[in-house]
Amino acid sequence: MFFHKQELHFHATPDQPDAVYARKLQEVLGGQYGEITVAMQYMFQGWNMHTPGKYRDLVFGIGSEEFGHVEMLATMIAQLLEKAPVGVTEEAVQSDPTVAAVIGGTDLQHAIVAGAGARPVDSMGNPWQGTYITASGNLLADFTANANAEMQGRTQVARLYHMTDDAGVRDMISFLLARDTMHQNQWLAAAAELRDEGTEKLPVPSNFPQSKEHTPVSYQYQNFSDGQRASEGSWASGATPDGNGEFSYHDGPTTSAEMPPPTHPDARFYGTTELPNSVEKMAGTAQDAMKRE
Amino acid sequence: MFFHKQELHFHATPDQPDAVYARKLQEVLGGQYGEITVAMQYMFQGWNMHTPGKYRDLVFGIGSEEFGHVEMLATMIAQLLEKAPVGVTEEAVQSDPTVAAVIGGTDLQHAIVAGAGARPVDSMGNPWQGTYITASGNLLADFTANANAEMQGRTQVARLYHMTDDAGVRDMISFLLARDTMHQNQWLAAAAELRDEGTEKLPVPSNFPQSKEHTPVSYQYQNFSDGQRASEGSWASGATPDGNGEFSYHDGPTTSAEMPPPTHPDARFYGTTELPNSVEKMAGTAQDAMKRE
Amino acid sequence: MFFHKQELHFHATPDQPDAVYARKLQEVLGGQYGEITVAMQYMFQGWNMHTPGKYRDLVFGIGSEEFGHVEMLATMIAQLLEKAPVGVTEEAVQSDPTVAAVIGGTDLQHAIVAGAGARPVDSMGNPWQGTYITASGNLLADFTANANAEMQGRTQVARLYHMTDDAGVRDMISFLLARDTMHQNQWLAAAAELRDEGTEKLPVPSNFPQSKEHTPVSYQYQNFSDGQRASEGSWASGATPDGNGEFSYHDGPTTSAEMPPPTHPDARFYGTTELPNSVEKMAGTAQDAMKRE
Amino acid sequence: MFFHKQELHFHATPDQPDAVYARKLQEVLGGQYGEITVAMQYMFQGWNMHTPGKYRDLVFGIGSEEFGHVEMLATMIAQLLEKAPVGVTEEAVQSDPTVAAVIGGTDLQHAIVAGAGARPVDSMGNPWQGTYITASGNLLADFTANANAEMQGRTQVARLYHMTDDAGVRDMISFLLARDTMHQNQWLAAAAELRDEGTEKLPVPSNFPQSKEHTPVSYQYQNFSDGQRASEGSWASGATPDGNGEFSYHDGPTTSAEMPPPTHPDARFYGTTELPNSVEKMAGTAQDAMKRE
Amino acid sequence: MFFHKQELHFHATPDQPDAVYARKLQEVLGGQYGEITVAMQYMFQGWNMHTPGKYRDLVFGIGSEEFGHVEMLATMIAQLLEKAPVGVTEEAVQSDPTVAAVIGGTDLQHAIVAGAGARPVDSMGNPWQGTYITASGNLLADFTANANAEMQGRTQVARLYHMTDDAGVRDMISFLLARDTMHQNQWLAAAAELRDEGTEKLPVPSNFPQSKEHTPVSYQYQNFSDGQRASEGSWASGATPDGNGEFSYHDGPTTSAEMPPPTHPDARFYGTTELPNSVEKMAGTAQDAMKRE
Amino acid sequence: MFFHKQELHFHATPDQPDAVYARKLQEVLGGQYGEITVAMQYMFQGWNMHTPGKYRDLVFGIGSEEFGHVEMLATMIAQLLEKAPVGVTEEAVQSDPTVAAVIGGTDLQHAIVAGAGARPVDSMGNPWQGTYITASGNLLADFTANANAEMQGRTQVARLYHMTDDAGVRDMISFLLARDTMHQNQWLAAAAELRDEGTEKLPVPSNFPQSKEHTPVSYQYQNFSDGQRASEGSWASGATPDGNGEFSYHDGPTTSAEMPPPTHPDARFYGTTELPNSVEKMAGTAQDAMKRE
Repeated sequence: MFFHKQELHFHATPDQPDAVYARKLQEVLGGQYGEITVAMQYMFQGWNMHTPGKYRDLVFGIGSEEFGHVEMLATMIAQLLEKAPVGVTEEAVQSDPTVAAVIGGTDLQHAIVAGAGARPVDSMGNPWQGTYITASGNLLADFTANANAEMQGRTQVARLYHMTDDAGVRDMISFLLARDTMHQNQWLAAAAELRDEGTEKLPVPSNFPQSKEHTPVSYQYQNFSDGQRASEGSWASGATPDGNGEFSYHDGPTTSAEMPPPTHPDARFYGTTELPNSVEKMAGTAQDAMKRE
Repeated sequence: MFFHKQELHFHATPDQPDAVYARKLQEVLGGQYGEITVAMQYMFQGWNMHTPGKYRDLVFGIGSEEFGHVEMLATMIAQLLEKAPVGVTEEAVQSDPTVAAVIGGTDLQHAIVAGAGARPVDSMGNPWQGTYITASGNLLADFTANANAEMQGRTQVARLYHMTDDAGVRDMISFLLARDTMHQNQWLAAAAELRDEGTEKLPVPSNFPQSKEHTPVSYQYQNFSDGQRASEGSWASGATPDGNGEFSYHDGPTTSAEMPPPTHPDARFYGTTELPNSVEKMAGTAQDAMKRE
Repeated sequence: MFFHKQELHFHATPDQPDAVYARKLQEVLGGQYGEITVAMQYMFQGWNMHTPGKYRDLVFGIGSEEFGHVEMLATMIAQLLEKAPVGVTEEAVQSDPTVAAVIGGTDLQHAIVAGAGARPVDSMGNPWQGTYITASGNLLADFTANANAEMQGRTQVARLYHMTDDAGVRDMISFLLARDTMHQNQWLAAAAELRDEGTEKLPVPSNFPQSKEHTPVSYQYQNFSDGQRASEGSWASGATPDGNGEFSYHDGPTTSAEMPPPTHPDARFYGTTELPNSVEKMAGTAQDAMKRE
Repeated sequence: MFFHKQELHFHATPDQPDAVYARKLQEVLGGQYGEITVAMQYMFQGWNMHTPGKYRDLVFGIGSEEFGHVEMLATMIAQLLEKAPVGVTEEAVQSDPTVAAVIGGTDLQHAIVAGAGARPVDSMGNPWQGTYITASGNLLADFTANANAEMQGRTQVARLYHMTDDAGVRDMISFLLARDTMHQNQWLAAAAELRDEGTEKLPVPSNFPQSKEHTPVSYQYQNFSDGQRASEGSWASGATPDGNGEFSYHDGPTTSAEMPPPTHPDARFYGTTELPNSVEKMAGTAQDAMKRE
Repeated sequence: MFFHKQELHFHATPDQPDAVYARKLQEVLGGQYGEITVAMQYMFQGWNMHTPGKYRDLVFGIGSEEFGHVEMLATMIAQLLEKAPVGVTEEAVQSDPTVAAVIGGTDLQHAIVAGAGARPVDSMGNPWQGTYITASGNLLADFTANANAEMQGRTQVARLYHMTDDAGVRDMISFLLARDTMHQNQWLAAAAELRDEGTEKLPVPSNFPQSKEHTPVSYQYQNFSDGQRASEGSWASGATPDGNGEFSYHDGPTTSAEMPPPTHPDARFYGTTELPNSVEKMAGTAQDAMKRE
Repeated sequence: MFFHKQELHFHATPDQPDAVYARKLQEVLGGQYGEITVAMQYMFQGWNMHTPGKYRDLVFGIGSEEFGHVEMLATMIAQLLEKAPVGVTEEAVQSDPTVAAVIGGTDLQHAIVAGAGARPVDSMGNPWQGTYITASGNLLADFTANANAEMQGRTQVARLYHMTDDAGVRDMISFLLARDTMHQNQWLAAAAELRDEGTEKLPVPSNFPQSKEHTPVSYQYQNFSDGQRASEGSWASGATPDGNGEFSYHDGPTTSAEMPPPTHPDARFYGTTELPNSVEKMAGTAQDAMKRE
């Protein structure tokens, strides 16, 4: 169960409205790595988790915080939109070029659809969608996904910091940056803990017996481009992070196989098959098949 | 530039057709973490990369390999579909219950749209889409995304291993598992190398000055759920992975702010505002505004 | 801010697993009118609302409840999936036709992607998306949207009631039905209250002066089909619900206008324009334009 | 069957082109509540309707009108785009700031894809999609959906009225506003008629026996937020609109249930399960399972 | 304007219900090449067309017919769903394996969402969307798109013919096949007429002066794969269909260019740039930039 | 297998950055008819093809080239974004109106998400998706789809030519135009060859026996609009392109059928059925049905 408290996790009030910036902030509200994504991702990980205790408490504890960040951003966006233009603007444009920027740069649905309100979309107006989240049931994979989400998120927020000089907005952003710092560290710590305590190992998923892989290629770097400098990296020689092997470097594939012959599905799919002579036969087949029906 | 060679990276021929399994394989061809995703993700990271050398050679070298895995899967799926049912099946169902499973479990567009061919969709028929990829320009974030993609991908392939006992299919899967093992290790190694050599640091993005964060909350675990066991984790006390702080545990938020008052955008957005008496005034405003036009 | 409590709003435990039914339940978790939709819809209405007080407290109070229903459904679905098939099944199918139904009827991503967990998708696997919600800022419109959402939702849940005879599932459904009954009534009451107290009127939006409409057609039923029985309805004669007019019935349109002549945009858009003789002229124009560049 | 007449339902000719406004109008052509939505929604309700007569004639009669409104808007948009810019614009921007607004504010696909023509998208460029419509077969629910669609639609059109001062555009808008007034009234009248004549009752769906709901909570307002003023509304006490009960107000949930224990699906899904000691056992299970295969 | 007549263009009544086949038919109602697509495509081509007369009358004349085909299919689907299962089915499955096929093979939203009605989706449940249509303003391109749509459509309908033996369904399909035959021929004839009368030429768009292309490669077949047999085709030598050149065959590219150096955008985007030493400089830049703010 | 070479197929370097134009170019990278579409389309046609030899070599040969064009565009876009604005811009806008155009006209995710890099989206920010491609297995249909794709693509590129005067960009565009010229010609030649050699015939699919169509309407133009000039076209009289018939012109439909009676699905779907008296009966049915459960 969720309980709502009519307070914000932190100040979220701009010094002045800015409808163009409101659109930019939508990215971290409703984008691929926005707050809706992390809130939903952590909660679904919790609901699907196969073990009680510290890890489940962790995703529930943070997932709920993230819904509060959705709220901070939505509240901020509504305020940034408070002077969103509704009237005829051509005249205004003539006398003030900044108006042109506003007209061109706003999310039109902020005005037309939401009446100067926030929306569950990204900065280009794409609706948030369920495919943004990851919850596989394997915690080492999922905590790596979470670390990535917080890294991408903090990067986007840092970029947004430079796109405004409104002190109120920057105040809120400084808070989000700090929380992203925390969460980034936290997921890396949690992923390390899974490995340290032996709950999970590399490669993910660790219980699948590697003997069933095609092991000759399990630690080969195969270079399908013509640049040679990847051979200099730690992924091209030396011990592997999973501790099970030794990297080697290969210029190009070490295996290959003939393409299998083209398929010949039922003639009633009407795919193009053979060249003239034989197509008569195929057509016959199709029409024979139909006669049998 | 890309050059195509009419060979496969590895055998991809089933022992026998299986249209239901063909649909399942679509997940790792055209799903969120399928081969199209990693191929596109690595290439876009390369095209957007701001530094030449080992890291760019790495993403180009692997990205091109992944396009070849798209090809292996598409070729395999076409063969699995070679006996996909097209004719009337009720009679067949009566005499053989496995036919019922086939009818219910296939991707109908494999037959109706593609004429027994592979499609750029996932196992539920959702088309592959550009939002599945990640390429931020920040390599530490992006290599973490890559590690996650390979972990999720290997987990899905491992599950698919158990959903067939066709030796030909399992042969191909054993190869994909091995390559996912390699790539998973490789991205972890590359992420570590970025940090070891000092190119990037934590928290991502590392050049943003932490002094501009709201530092009091940068390393606080704030628990928004009522489970207490997250306090036991390495994310709740001790040094942080970025080396810049010390984790602390807090039951609930350590900050809060009043909700700002509701916004009052232009009356011509026709949002509901005040209660009866004052709405007259608002309405007046709206109608006044219109008179002025 | 949101606080999570590790309890459910009501029992959500099936008597036994049923992976096919798990997929069906996804509709009311992540579908157009599922619980994610209403949770998000009510919260966005609150964050965008222009008036404090009873209406805002209402949407916050119910929106938070709905997130708890998302949780009940996700928890239920995970349990229904507890015996989801992973192994090879052909043999099983031969001996038990119900296995065929299970294979054909499950959400394949439940197994392959989520490892037997719930997902933010509908019963056909389409991801939840932000376009499902409505929050216009006009409360009479939005509460009508809410009443509709609860009506559609309760209808879907009632259908789902008949698709299982698992007592545990039906127990949870009986609870959801009751809450949908409440919410349906509540939004109708709230819409009525807006009108009774004069905060909003019909037609929505009520502050737009009807004198600026093309009033001759404001209350005309115009019949564009050839059935005549719509003339019998209360929408074809008598007073209108908004109290501002009188319905009238018309067989076909009462207005019409000539189609404007085709447009002639810049020749450099390369649209097909006039017939042979004149196209020379147009082409000339295009090529002249290019010469000027 | 549908027959097309090369006339418009009303004048749809702007006084002058305005490519920025063309984009705004796309919202009510191809958006969530645009004319394509209502046209498709009413026709699908008709095709799926289980009763002949006045209600089916109604949806067919209005659905066809709405296709004509799609046509009016598409025609208008093509004209607004007649001077859409195609050439190099930097020089023009230097001498006229309004050009900057045009460049930033247009739908780029109007020019690049459609060659100065209308498209089936909303004002942010999202394609129209089938999930926008509602047709459940239950007419009381669906007519409530229709009333909402017309309310949202009229609100959007009213906002668009203020975003132009082109007399030709406003003329068309005044017509659409009037028809939205009619349709809003009409669906409310039709919903009332369903209830008055006893065809449908509240709560929707009315034939589902309420005895099978968990009736103790059927009319309880349960407040999951900390605002108290929702208790003042007509939804918190007094008779319910469905006439079957009495509202009551409760601060927080009146029911709760323990979270069920975490699930333990097949080990071959490779979800993370127990902590170190027991994971050995689980892993064993997984590998045992594989040996049996 | 559109006028609806409560008759169908042809019989559309099945001999008996078949909920699985209802789902298959959705492909040609709401799929990429279904009837909604062609109806919308032709009408948008008409609304955007820059020339009055025979071509515009053609798209309007056929577009309206296609809306009638949407209606035929929706009506047929509703009838096929008339016995769609709603009740508990496990028992039924035990006694009749065909029930298993039904359960697995139906569109679950047909039952749960539409109450046994048609939906604007394809056979895998993906909603119809605006990106399926093509209307560029260039008629030679668009009529080629139309010919393709009718070819794909007829192929899908032919496949569907074999998936049923219901005489009523096949009767309707025989009609759709005939109309697709007509429309396929018609668009090819119309495309030929555009060229014959000189309204349009190849290559599309014909008014763009080929002198501005990089003409050395305008008629070169460049082979980027290792198969050699494409050299045997009429596209590898001889006169080109546009009459402007001569095909030639080349094994591999005839041009190439060095990759440009990596980009160096503003340091405040926090992309990874140079290796350790220089990153200090970059970081300095970023932090200097911030100090300047 | 694919091999990557770190060279471009042609120069792709702008004379100077232009973030607004970068967004426009996204259309031909990631739009409906962009380079990702043709690359994927041709490769999937190859992987699904049922015949080896010249046609399969053709799609593989060109498909791989198109991936190289994706690369050229991505590389160009990254360079055009090299000076994308990140800092606060209001001050700049005041002094230079072109800045306003830049702010309004850029793809915001280029900056916020990709850090000044290319993305797999179109010019309005919609992600590329798998539904853009066509691969039916029938080569005459698919090569017609390919011809259309190249026509639409060349039209879009021609429009983009006029939207810049950057010599470097135009250089690249001149190359893409030439390759589109080639590919357009090539697919038309290949489609003709299929017919000339008798591999495929019209109407597609040619093996389906026309005797099973409803032949009376196979070559009838039926006019569902009120324009008469379509009767003047070559599609209204004379021999048909497939050589099997003779076109005829008809004003309106030549067939019609009564609408079938409304359906009556199971009462437990809760659709609205009959008027008051009979609804009691229906309700009884529903409740009886429930009692039986």
